[in-house]
Amino acid sequence: MKRIITLLFMAIAFSANAQQALWSGPAPESPVINEDGTVTFRYRAPKAIKVEVTGDFLPTQKMEVEWEGQKRTFDVPGARELKEGKGGVWEYTTEFAVAPDLYNYTFRVDGDTVIDPHNMWVNRDVSTLTSVLLVPKEGYRSDLYAIHKVPHGTVSKVWYHSDMAGFDRRLTVYTPAGYETSKAKYPVLYVLHGVGGDEDAWVTQGRATQILDNLIARGEAKPMIVVFTNGNISQEAAPLENSNGYVNPTMQLPQTMEGTFETAFPEIIKFIDGRYRTIAKKQSRAVCGLSMGGYHTLYLSINYPQLFNYSGMFSAAVVARDSVSPIYKDFDAKLKKYYAGKPALLWIGCGKTDFLYQANKDFMKKLDDNGFKYTYMETEGGHIWRNWRIYFTEFVPLLFK
Amino acid sequence: MKRIITLLFMAIAFSANAQQALWSGPAPESPVINEDGTVTFRYRAPKAIKVEVTGDFLPTQKMEVEWEGQKRTFDVPGARELKEGKGGVWEYTTEFAVAPDLYNYTFRVDGDTVIDPHNMWVNRDVSTLTSVLLVPKEGYRSDLYAIHKVPHGTVSKVWYHSDMAGFDRRLTVYTPAGYETSKAKYPVLYVLHGVGGDEDAWVTQGRATQILDNLIARGEAKPMIVVFTNGNISQEAAPLENSNGYVNPTMQLPQTMEGTFETAFPEIIKFIDGRYRTIAKKQSRAVCGLSMGGYHTLYLSINYPQLFNYSGMFSAAVVARDSVSPIYKDFDAKLKKYYAGKPALLWIGCGKTDFLYQANKDFMKKLDDNGFKYTYMETEGGHIWRNWRIYFTEFVPLLFK
Repeated sequence: MKRIITLLFMAIAFSANAQQALWSGPAPESPVINEDGTVTFRYRAPKAIKVEVTGDFLPTQKMEVEWEGQKRTFDVPGARELKEGKGGVWEYTTEFAVAPDLYNYTFRVDGDTVIDPHNMWVNRDVSTLTSVLLVPKEGYRSDLYAIHKVPHGTVSKVWYHSDMAGFDRRLTVYTPAGYETSKAKYPVLYVLHGVGGDEDAWVTQGRATQILDNLIARGEAKPMIVVFTNGNISQEAAPLENSNGYVNPTMQLPQTMEGTFETAFPEIIKFIDGRYRTIAKKQSRAVCGLSMGGYHTLYLSINYPQLFNYSGMFSAAVVARDSVSPIYKDFDAKLKKYYAGKPALLWIGCGKTDFLYQANKDFMKKLDDNGFKYTYMETEGGHIWRNWRIYFTEFVPLLFK
Repeated sequence: MKRIITLLFMAIAFSANAQQALWSGPAPESPVINEDGTVTFRYRAPKAIKVEVTGDFLPTQKMEVEWEGQKRTFDVPGARELKEGKGGVWEYTTEFAVAPDLYNYTFRVDGDTVIDPHNMWVNRDVSTLTSVLLVPKEGYRSDLYAIHKVPHGTVSKVWYHSDMAGFDRRLTVYTPAGYETSKAKYPVLYVLHGVGGDEDAWVTQGRATQILDNLIARGEAKPMIVVFTNGNISQEAAPLENSNGYVNPTMQLPQTMEGTFETAFPEIIKFIDGRYRTIAKKQSRAVCGLSMGGYHTLYLSINYPQLFNYSGMFSAAVVARDSVSPIYKDFDAKLKKYYAGKPALLWIGCGKTDFLYQANKDFMKKLDDNGFKYTYMETEGGHIWRNWRIYFTEFVPLLFK
């Protein structure tokens, strides 16, 4: 028995290109969360001259970039050097306990960025691969990002036909635990991604389905159907899931932020209300999104005041439009009409160092000047997933009460 | 508009750790399928001494390994050196047109294995990450592995409660296009993975859902529900989806191939028949699996002759057992009873250089000696996913006719 298992192991390991790893000894363990809360990163590279680790678990540093004749400052993740030890295994242990959260990190080996080959948890964010480090801790928000022995919802990749696009398009749909065995109807939250993202982004980088499972199990959120859309109307699906061959994702897609997605959105609602047991009315419908998705959220909310009762704008790109789409016309009049419809919640979240911070402040000033109510959460940091996960965990419990 | 998009791009790129990539110029395109069918691989490493590419698109080479005092020969993927060009970008173009198929490859930079950082298509196979290259071509089998503009089934991650395990466990469930809008009942195929695999393996490395979409759209397979199980009964789910924290997958799991999975299998069937519109009878139920999953398939088939009408053993680990489980007792008597139940199909596939080739030949000799019918397909190569995808495309069209 043991012999056969070992043979199976060897055969599979060889066929999986892993012989190199096998013959260089056991794989270095990385990352390791130590008892004292520090984290150790390891990378094997016997011939390297310099190995660094960089990621959002490190304090950010400022980087100045000149652009359009103007100097702009961005927060970029810090970096630390690893030290070479036995067998060419480089190592770095943080000089601090890493705060409970979810982080992305990569190594830089002689200047070139690589993921951690011994950590199978890899996320794609647009066209960058990063290794993932989750430091969960009971009593902390990051506990919501971890998987617990609680009832799990079903996560499905579902295709609908878009008349406006002229082809089938892909959605990620979360149905809460109990949906399939109950006859109840459920409220629906639509969740939108940012530029370069897709219907996968919120469930990989966003940990949205874990957050939903946990919030619902705790009784802190209502059971709800959650639909993660693809906001790039010219795409069938995430880059790996398209029929026109595999193409690496890019930031700029045709037909993004020019009104077609918002115009076509009722198709999606119609499909979801037809396919699932939804409460198909404004009182039980919410929408939220990050960055470009926050922008979509705003225009969906004011263009369809009869459709959404709850709206969440996370680091939203609330900026003036030069598109000719009717979606972006008559902003002030639409905003007034939206508030006349007495929506239950307009929720705004933004980081203090977000490059869209001022744009969000300006937007809120407009709301204030008109006496329009909203809820605002301000966080540290900028235009990053850490903030979007925070906003999601804050927004979801407020829905459908 | 353009300005804002660019700012969004910059902000997101920085936050995603990609600044290094940004400032070293545009990412090298890799892999590129050229007009003449050759493939070019590129890797940027200005300070590297040697860069190689290795993968199953290259002819295999023999590797001798001594094990238990015996020399054993394994087929391992070949390797080719890349040549350094401008800007430290290394490049290799195959000296041959790469046959249409799906391949896994990695780079070796000064001896260390890394994936292609500019190819977002990454598969995990047990505890190895590899980059994926798909060369699809009309008229070739690999066309089945590509995504086409055909009706797509729904792919769901679904949890069921296992009384035997004592906790909830995860399945991948494929419902064919049209399932949700029809009232029809469907036959069910259960698909099992190998040692170290899980409920994700067949949909990532196996391309099973693309194959199903395409075969069904062509009319070459019946619309069917397909259930991808997790055969490691001590696990809730794939390594990234467990509640006991994130642990890298290993080949050896407790409670693997010792009878519990097979004993507990009727739980899964009961769950699926309860949750989905299935034709809940033997005539409309099939099971198949690779390696350990082929072994599970065999023991499920002969232990529950009333349950399965079609069985597919792909590179099956048909080996003598020393487990005490009743599942493995009375093999010959059970086999006889299984055939007495007149199953529609026992399908066996094995590669000529598979280390389980002789074991499969021995098993077929036993079937021959007893006059038991089966269908056999022999392919080139060994214990590899390329073969398992072939077997799947051959087996599925034979079902439920």
